[in-house]
Amino acid sequence: MSVDIDSIGEDIGLFDAIRTTRAIRRLKSDPVPVELIRKVCEAGTFAPSGGNRQPWFFVAVMDQDKRAFIAKKYNETFQSYIEPAKIAAQNPDYPDAKRRNMNAAIYLAEHLHEAPVHLFVAGWTRRGEPQSQALFPAIQNILLACRAVGLGASLTTAHRAHGEEIDRYIGLSEKTPSSALIPIGWPKGKYGTPTRRPIDDAFFVDQIPEGRLD
Amino acid sequence: MSVDIDSIGEDIGLFDAIRTTRAIRRLKSDPVPVELIRKVCEAGTFAPSGGNRQPWFFVAVMDQDKRAFIAKKYNETFQSYIEPAKIAAQNPDYPDAKRRNMNAAIYLAEHLHEAPVHLFVAGWTRRGEPQSQALFPAIQNILLACRAVGLGASLTTAHRAHGEEIDRYIGLSEKTPSSALIPIGWPKGKYGTPTRRPIDDAFFVDQIPEGRLD
Repeated sequence: MSVDIDSIGEDIGLFDAIRTTRAIRRLKSDPVPVELIRKVCEAGTFAPSGGNRQPWFFVAVMDQDKRAFIAKKYNETFQSYIEPAKIAAQNPDYPDAKRRNMNAAIYLAEHLHEAPVHLFVAGWTRRGEPQSQALFPAIQNILLACRAVGLGASLTTAHRAHGEEIDRYIGLSEKTPSSALIPIGWPKGKYGTPTRRPIDDAFFVDQIPEGRLD
Repeated sequence: MSVDIDSIGEDIGLFDAIRTTRAIRRLKSDPVPVELIRKVCEAGTFAPSGGNRQPWFFVAVMDQDKRAFIAKKYNETFQSYIEPAKIAAQNPDYPDAKRRNMNAAIYLAEHLHEAPVHLFVAGWTRRGEPQSQALFPAIQNILLACRAVGLGASLTTAHRAHGEEIDRYIGLSEKTPSSALIPIGWPKGKYGTPTRRPIDDAFFVDQIPEGRLD
């Protein structure tokens, strides 16, 4: 097993992985080896952090009852803020890309308990404040590493509305709050290039021309 | 030229890149093709963002006079907060790793004007607040892409003490503040595995044991 885990995903190129990592929210319920989750989290630890403080902790919730509890709390939050989007989406002019995103988010919420791994990324507070920003480079490494090893993953922070309750439930204290939840599993769909606006809409040399961003 | 840019860096593996990307602050002053900076920024745009809002803007400052101005402002901030670290580092028990980090940060501040590219990552505010957190996955993609194409880079937010002044100077408004400065150039040193604590210090399954993080 350990040989497989060490070699899996090592053949994919960096740019290839970057260009084909998209949020995968439709996941099979089949189990995922914990060693593979450990491997993608280790990739996370190579991210930079201010003063090399490495403030992160990774909690991979795999226990079925725990995932059911987390999914229930997640759904309570989610329902209250998806309603306006559902109403807006009844308009025939609602953009297709947004409608697809919304439907995938609804799918995730309704099927979260089935995702075999609920990976929480938490971090030490600093001067009493959560340092979410310090965790996001590590999170991006994890999303790319999931892509490389063939796992589907997406990033959500919507659990934060019940964050304290969920954090205490998995042993995180107010000194180490979770900033992100990454549901992980084998993908039902395929990887693919995500929809983005052209780089030249966002890239400037030396100076942003006046009025360009108004 | 465009063929070179398209193919450069495409051969490095994702995990290889992740494991050998460290902050490179000692940079040659030789120029870097703007197309290569555009390529690493394009890698940034494949990062996820909430609701696929893609709030980011990239400003690559390459003009020498502009870089001198930015370096001057950066240094004014830096000097005031490096002094306590310098005094602490006179203690013979000061950890070597911290001393190396400090010396590299001092080097960067003193040589920032020589770095051929000052890349600013900025983003739309949301409800009046900067969304730094939403930019950091894109920033991590950029750091990895720099590694892949052979560029040295590091991440700093220390410019923020003079952030508004610098932002206005390069055409960013209060609606699109910069969150990070990434000085980029050809590296003087080598890539290498950064120093990190073992993954098993940070990785937990299902539950953090009581007292484990106290």
